[in-house]
Amino acid sequence: MRILGIDPGLQTTGFGVIEADGPRLAYVASGTIRTTGAGCGVATGDLPGRIRILFEGVREVIQTYQPTCAAVEIVFVNVNPQSTLLLGQARGAALAALTSAGLAVNEYTALQMKKAVVGHGHAKKEQVQAMVQHLLKLPGLPGKDAADALGLAIVQAHAQTSFAAMSAKGQLQRRQHAQYKGSRTY
Amino acid sequence: MRILGIDPGLQTTGFGVIEADGPRLAYVASGTIRTTGAGCGVATGDLPGRIRILFEGVREVIQTYQPTCAAVEIVFVNVNPQSTLLLGQARGAALAALTSAGLAVNEYTALQMKKAVVGHGHAKKEQVQAMVQHLLKLPGLPGKDAADALGLAIVQAHAQTSFAAMSAKGQLQRRQHAQYKGSRTY
Repeated sequence: MRILGIDPGLQTTGFGVIEADGPRLAYVASGTIRTTGAGCGVATGDLPGRIRILFEGVREVIQTYQPTCAAVEIVFVNVNPQSTLLLGQARGAALAALTSAGLAVNEYTALQMKKAVVGHGHAKKEQVQAMVQHLLKLPGLPGKDAADALGLAIVQAHAQTSFAAMSAKGQLQRRQHAQYKGSRTY
Repeated sequence: MRILGIDPGLQTTGFGVIEADGPRLAYVASGTIRTTGAGCGVATGDLPGRIRILFEGVREVIQTYQPTCAAVEIVFVNVNPQSTLLLGQARGAALAALTSAGLAVNEYTALQMKKAVVGHGHAKKEQVQAMVQHLLKLPGLPGKDAADALGLAIVQAHAQTSFAAMSAKGQLQRRQHAQYKGSRTY
């Protein structure tokens, strides 16, 4: 079972690919798809061009690593509505690339990912990076976006291989639904 | 010059294809891509499946009618942030289908489209339908979503064929930027 995790964003989308054989996890690849030059802010004018880079980047990752399923972060509404609209479009392009390639897509919140990887939902980015490095026996610390994407793939591996993990996932989904009701910064 | 107009939405996406030969416009096709069964509301649970239907629907329209460029409606933040997030994902999937097919994408607001088609920006849906029927010499009234999409294609035809129309587009774009600053219902 080869799992592709995607942490979508309009400027930077993280991806991570792992092999899961029962409880055994092995790192395959990870990285980021960037749609901007260094230091550039978000310009809505070239949005179609950025969407194309993101879509084709995800598609290239799929073709290169041939995953059997995918896990994508559920994004939340931002305090800035315009940012919400841009993030939504980025996520839509990533989902289009995954689903049109025939991949089943599972969705998890950052809270679910952190809880599964670090043990609690309020873990910092650095803790996620350190635990992902530990769990996948990486020689160095993965980047933040790549670590989140690998974390999503790990959650999916847990969900598929353990009945106990499946139950835990159910509890987490109930929490996620509660969160949906309140506006929340990303 | 064959132009594809797209009015994106998660439940219903309108499309319209016209041929533009200088000021002469000819209807080619129009319709809607629906991601729900009749009467079903938006369920976030099957979002990846809906994104796939939308993406593949737009791709099929492109393959069938072979447009040379596209015009897509600029969407605004909704009063409901969750709706904004869903609309954004739908638009991202539509843009992914258009740009990955190599089409240049032009973006217009509903205000720009109404002003170009009806003559003023506060036209009602029914007025857009009637004017689109008149301009394209249709035997019957087009559906509302298809009429908006055909209207977007007409705006694009005007922008490309007339220098005067290009100047008018400049004025409209300045107005659109002013609108971006304020939150606005879609």
